[in-house]
Order: sequence, then C-alpha cells, then structure tokens
Amino acid sequence: DAGRLAVLLPGPPREMQPMFVDHVRPLLLQMIGHGVILSRSLRVIGIGESALEEQLADLIATQSNPTIALYASLGELQIRITAKAEDEAAANLLIAPVETAIRQRIKTAIYGIDNETLPGVLGQLLKERGYQLAVAESCTGGLLGSMITDVSGSSDYFASGFITYSNEAKQKILGVSEAIIKEQGAVSAACAKAMATGARQKSGADVAIAITGIAGPTGGSPEKPVGTVYVAISAPEGDLVEELALRGERSAIRARSAKTAVNLARLLLLGELK
Amino acid sequence: DAGRLAVLLPGPPREMQPMFVDHVRPLLLQMIGHGVILSRSLRVIGIGESALEEQLADLIATQSNPTIALYASLGELQIRITAKAEDEAAANLLIAPVETAIRQRIKTAIYGIDNETLPGVLGQLLKERGYQLAVAESCTGGLLGSMITDVSGSSDYFASGFITYSNEAKQKILGVSEAIIKEQGAVSAACAKAMATGARQKSGADVAIAITGIAGPTGGSPEKPVGTVYVAISAPEGDLVEELALRGERSAIRARSAKTAVNLARLLLLGELK
Repeated sequence: DAGRLAVLLPGPPREMQPMFVDHVRPLLLQMIGHGVILSRSLRVIGIGESALEEQLADLIATQSNPTIALYASLGELQIRITAKAEDEAAANLLIAPVETAIRQRIKTAIYGIDNETLPGVLGQLLKERGYQLAVAESCTGGLLGSMITDVSGSSDYFASGFITYSNEAKQKILGVSEAIIKEQGAVSAACAKAMATGARQKSGADVAIAITGIAGPTGGSPEKPVGTVYVAISAPEGDLVEELALRGERSAIRARSAKTAVNLARLLLLGELK
Repeated sequence: DAGRLAVLLPGPPREMQPMFVDHVRPLLLQMIGHGVILSRSLRVIGIGESALEEQLADLIATQSNPTIALYASLGELQIRITAKAEDEAAANLLIAPVETAIRQRIKTAIYGIDNETLPGVLGQLLKERGYQLAVAESCTGGLLGSMITDVSGSSDYFASGFITYSNEAKQKILGVSEAIIKEQGAVSAACAKAMATGARQKSGADVAIAITGIAGPTGGSPEKPVGTVYVAISAPEGDLVEELALRGERSAIRARSAKTAVNLARLLLLGELK
C-alpha cells in the first residue's frame, strides 16, 4: 500500500542471505526498474554515537541523494552513504564529495570502509612495517588475541600472546615486578606498561599490546570501579598507556577493551598519538 | 485468526527483551488464563543434530505434554522440554520422567541445563577439584582462553594461557622440541601433546588444554586439510590427544575447536574418557 514494501527476513545469516539473494534482491531490482543503488560504509571507532550525530547533523539533514545513515554496534559505528544513480560511476560521483566532507570532520576516527575490520586494518599496518605483534592480556583473557587471529593471514604478523590472569602469572611469565603488584595493583597503568614491556621481551616481537582491568561484575572498588581498564602499547613508534572507564556488562567491557586496544595500536602506528 | 497469534520482535536483545517482558509476556499470560508453561533445556555437545533426532525420534513423536523440541547452534544442541500444567510443581512432575528418559539415552553428552554454559560447567569441575587451568593455543589464537574467562569468577581456577601462533613461539615459550616441529609438523598430535605438557610446566597449573590446527581458508594440504585440529589435555586424571576433522569457515572451525576442547576436558575430569 502507498507504494511501500515491507520484507521480513529471518535473523540467522545462513537463512537470511540466500533468501535475500534469490528473492528479495531480484524483486528490488525489478521495482527500481533501471539505475543502481550504491552504498559505501565508513567504519568508525573512538567516537560516541551522539557526538558523531552532532558533528554530521547538517550533512545528514541537507542530503537526500546520497543519504547518510548511522548504525551503532558494540563500541563501533558505521556511516552509510547511499546514492541512487543511472550507473555505478554516476553513483560514485555522488558519494565521493560527501565522503570527503565526512572524512574532513572526523579524520582518523574512520578506520576503514565497507567490509574492512579493525583487526584487519591493524594487521595491514603491521605487515607494511614488517612488524611482529605480541599481546598480554589479563581481563580480556584471550579475546584480544582471538580478535587479531580471526583475520586470515594473521600468522604473517602475530607472534604470540600471554594470558596472565593471576598476579603470579603476571610476575612469572611476563616479569612484572612484585613491587608494582603490591604498591599499585594488578589493575594499574604501571602494571599494563610492565606487561607490554614483558610481552615484547619474552616474544621478541616489535609491538606489544597489554590489557589489564576489572571486567566485573565483581572485583570493583570505590577507587577502581568495574570497567576500569588500562591499555599499554610498546612499539618502535613509542610507548603509551591509557586508562579507560567503560560501562556495561562483563562481556561488553571485555569487547570494548580489546577493540579500544586495537584502535590505540592503529593510531600509534599511524603517528596519530604524538 | 483461527486462534493463532504471531508476535514479531526485533533481533537485538537490548530491544527485544524489554518489549517481551513489558508487552508480550503479559499478553501471553492473559491468553493462557490460568496455569503455567514451564520449560527445561538440556544442553548437549559432542553429538550431531540428526543423530540426536534419531535417538529421540520416538520420544518426540509420542509426546504432547510435555513437548520436546531440538535447537542447534554452532557446535551445540539444546533439547527443550516444555510442559503445560496447573502450577509449577505439576509441570515439573510432567517434565521429570521425560528428562530421565532422555538422559538415559544420551548420558554425558548433556553437559548442563537451562542457562549453564560449557565453560561454566568445566569451571565448576575445576573448582570442585581445586585445580588450576592453563591453555596453549595455536589456531584458536586466544578464543579458548576468552571462552573460559568469559565466566565471572574464572580467576578462581584460570591461571594463564599461551598463544603460540608461530613455530618459534611454540618452541621458545612452551618448549616444544624442534624435532617435533620438523618431523611431525606444528599441526600434529605430538605437537599438541608437547604444547599441553609445556603449558602445564610453565604455568604450574594442574590441567592444561592445548589446541593446534588449520583454521583456514589457507594452509591446508591433502594430508592435513583445512579443519584438521588436534586437541591435547594433560591432567592428574591422565593425558589425551584427539584429532578433529572440522568443516566450515575459519571462525566456525575456531569456535568448534575451542568448544570441543572444553568438552573433552570436562569428560576427562568426569572420568568418562578412560
């Protein structure tokens, strides 16, 4: 009715994708009649949804072709620019100036486009520099290593990882000093730094990323509440340590910690953190 | 129409859950009028969906209250037994004999009920025995450690993990011998065993789980195709090594490898693998 079509599809990608390809896509193409609809997604991290909306509000309000839409998922955002035109080349000509305008505003918060992933982009930077990477994880318990090695071909640059969950493991495996654990605690900037340094030494890697924090739901204190996480990176470009204050459930805090760590490594390698 | 009600809900749990609790649940309760609908889910691993269906076919066909339904998700199955009765006690009385009948057939393939998770169940077994756990991961790259530490309270029994992705890391960090790497390869029963032994020694843990394999899409060979994975476990109960031949995409192979490894550790601790 009123020229509107609603298509309901099941959630599981294995069921949804063939249904879309075999039935919905042909139907949509038939409805369009001629011309193409082309989308480009800019992948964004390190900026909040409302902050991004504010920064792009005038662009979103004034555009009709291409349209600009924002999508949020766990700690990441997507800006989708969609153009309708006679052919692909014409659609790209419509998309290009809008993409440029957006890039001028939010710069390196854009880590990639379309199907690029944050760990994939970091992997590319490591490969270009001929670097080997090591990770040292406490509260993420292997999630950072898992994200990085989820990329096919990551064996080119991923050397090894250390999941040092207990204080004893941090000391014995990574050489974190007892003084740091006793005086500043396992969740501290000093411990994160020592974990990164230790991981780099023990593995012989060029770059090391370390994460230590409190993923909850227990373990928090007034001084260091649940969601307090320290990320340290040691690289030829320099060292950094950053304190994060994350909210959410255990799994969300772990996922955001790992993603933020990958993003900080990306920015450090790009020379954006000096 | 015809007394049937369809409720369409959005996929994201954050949106779906409050909608269900605030609107759908009261509606359903009102429709039922009186009585309760009670479900119990039996969580199953290590048996295929069609094999399970075959084993339970007569039960599923002859039951109407309670009903028996099977659900499959990545490497796991759920058997949901649902009873309708005047009250909870009466519903439980209907469910109990069906649960007993199912348990007699598939025994330890049932690892838990309702919201229990496989890593949570393994954690409970480790805690009861006062064991500390270490992991050594190659193709899973941290996913096994991540699954285990996704359980709140896992710091009670998870000591440390080693992500030894490169051959060099396997030798240097876990002490796998050069002879094993050269003669049998990094993807071999011998290497998995040496990784487990090494992880147990280096960490001082009581139990170690090691995984090495080819997650793909590249790296396969005619002798060792993509999906060839070795899991080794070293524990006070004994040692084991198992060869898996998994199918699917990289992420599915990784997830199934980690889940199977956790399940094998569970069965070993339960004394079911002798």
